[in-house]
Amino acid sequence: MSETNTQVRLAARPVGRPKPEDWSIEQVAVPQPGANEFLAKVIYISLDPAMRGWMNDVKSYIEPVGINEVMRAGGIAEIIESNNPEFAVGDHVYCMTGVQQYFVSDGADAQKVDPNIAPLVKYLGVLGMTGMTAYFGLLDVAEAKEGETVVVSGAAGAVGSIVGQIAKIKGCRVVGIAGGEKKCQLLIDELDFDAAIDYKSEDLRKALRQHCPKGIDVFFDNVGGETLNTVLPQMRRHGRIAICGAISQYNNTEAVQGPSNYMSLLVSRSRMEGFVVFDYAQQFGAAMQEMAGWMAAGQLNSKEHIEKGIENFPDVLLKLFDGGNFGKLILQVDE
Amino acid sequence: MSETNTQVRLAARPVGRPKPEDWSIEQVAVPQPGANEFLAKVIYISLDPAMRGWMNDVKSYIEPVGINEVMRAGGIAEIIESNNPEFAVGDHVYCMTGVQQYFVSDGADAQKVDPNIAPLVKYLGVLGMTGMTAYFGLLDVAEAKEGETVVVSGAAGAVGSIVGQIAKIKGCRVVGIAGGEKKCQLLIDELDFDAAIDYKSEDLRKALRQHCPKGIDVFFDNVGGETLNTVLPQMRRHGRIAICGAISQYNNTEAVQGPSNYMSLLVSRSRMEGFVVFDYAQQFGAAMQEMAGWMAAGQLNSKEHIEKGIENFPDVLLKLFDGGNFGKLILQVDE
Repeated sequence: MSETNTQVRLAARPVGRPKPEDWSIEQVAVPQPGANEFLAKVIYISLDPAMRGWMNDVKSYIEPVGINEVMRAGGIAEIIESNNPEFAVGDHVYCMTGVQQYFVSDGADAQKVDPNIAPLVKYLGVLGMTGMTAYFGLLDVAEAKEGETVVVSGAAGAVGSIVGQIAKIKGCRVVGIAGGEKKCQLLIDELDFDAAIDYKSEDLRKALRQHCPKGIDVFFDNVGGETLNTVLPQMRRHGRIAICGAISQYNNTEAVQGPSNYMSLLVSRSRMEGFVVFDYAQQFGAAMQEMAGWMAAGQLNSKEHIEKGIENFPDVLLKLFDGGNFGKLILQVDE
Repeated sequence: MSETNTQVRLAARPVGRPKPEDWSIEQVAVPQPGANEFLAKVIYISLDPAMRGWMNDVKSYIEPVGINEVMRAGGIAEIIESNNPEFAVGDHVYCMTGVQQYFVSDGADAQKVDPNIAPLVKYLGVLGMTGMTAYFGLLDVAEAKEGETVVVSGAAGAVGSIVGQIAKIKGCRVVGIAGGEKKCQLLIDELDFDAAIDYKSEDLRKALRQHCPKGIDVFFDNVGGETLNTVLPQMRRHGRIAICGAISQYNNTEAVQGPSNYMSLLVSRSRMEGFVVFDYAQQFGAAMQEMAGWMAAGQLNSKEHIEKGIENFPDVLLKLFDGGNFGKLILQVDE
């Protein structure tokens, strides 16, 4: 065990794309657990587009991270000292660890995870908030049904790659939008998508017409901006758009681009709906069981993109915005 | 009866606001009814924001009006000759009359209306498509419920003024957005709105905060543009936005303004949904009965703004975009 605790803190509110000077990397003493607390070492940290929103000083579904505070992050940690009878040394937990090597907690937000059931990284991806976001967004918000055409943007990302696979399991036709030929090939070869559109080299409007000749019943949007705008006029009657994210807009220094084609919602009698996965917490258990069953049956192939070293957090985070990851982006902090 | 039939035809596709030269006023012979047809004289023509969309050469929920075709319009007409046993001379009908004095029809789209039950103009307003749009948009699409806060834009317009009253009947708190002090006063004095905001003189964002301190459960939008954008961040959790129209954008010569605050849908877990009233045709009968009951009970106070003279159609239509009407705008063509 290290004698110091390396932390990545938010030093300044980024304007646009986060820069190195927006972060400070601090060495502090490893904290001591108090009564009813445990000390844990962080093993894996989940990197998510939502993190960019937490860095802005605006009201949202969660408080922003304060200046000079440890950056918020979900992660997997191992208990190394415990004064809490509910957590034993050697237990693994999922909780909001923050971007740091060690933390103490009373365990109120910690959920135990079992490395014998699934590799630890899966609890950040397919069996974690990523998987839950895909599951409830697709099946509850967008109400995808057998025989329908589902389009997902950010299809090679953590959430998008699971959305597409769940849609296939449910008997939908699935078209993914991703950046680059390689990602598109992987969507078809490894994740069984029916079609993939490379928005960097193809005309998205034409490609959607080609791959969705009857129109689009469900659009699961992680990207926003021009992608959302191009999809809108191709929605089928009574279509559903689940708004999960808008990664194309998160580093904007100018105003967010609103979907100027939103009146297509009227023409197609469609709806566009936002959601936050935490609202489904009561149903996570059942959903995780179903997801684990699909994994065991070989129907759900989850992808992780793992980088190493806590000090690399500022650079690795940018991969999300640069399209540098295929599948769930995870930072490994310890073995 | 006149010997000629005056028609208002679309001469050119308007760019932005329709100009006099976009119309031609023609005198043609009064048509003769063929077998199984009737000849009818038009009494009232309904003027609606949707007409602006019909003039554009774009795919929508209905075909555009062709160049040199009689402008499409719904209206009330009286049968003056009939070779159709289902329609007698003296019967009144609602149908797509077009902007003209006379027309022949086989009656396929004509619905008889009874001036003894309600004045004829009511069949274009509260008991017509206007009323049906308000009824199904508010109660079916937006699912307004007792105790909720409902905001309606274009509140002094034909649809908006009915939306607000139905919401009051259903036990909602109702806030109207309209242009001008006089309209706002009428909303409160005559239509029993709880509050009215004059978007021309007030700061809409602040006024909404004041009048909707708990946020907005339902927004019924006739206006679009900056109004929609300002409302979005004030939606309550699980709010519903019914997209009925976007009159602020219909005469745009530049691109439609998309709602840049659409990601607020995520923060508030809200949805935005478009609809077309014709989809509810099967339920019109029951809804009209309920509306007639509210009128009879003095709970639903419908307003008509009636102008005269078919040759004035091009000018009168512009009142919709200039905010020149309070209530349903109707052109009287004949006594």
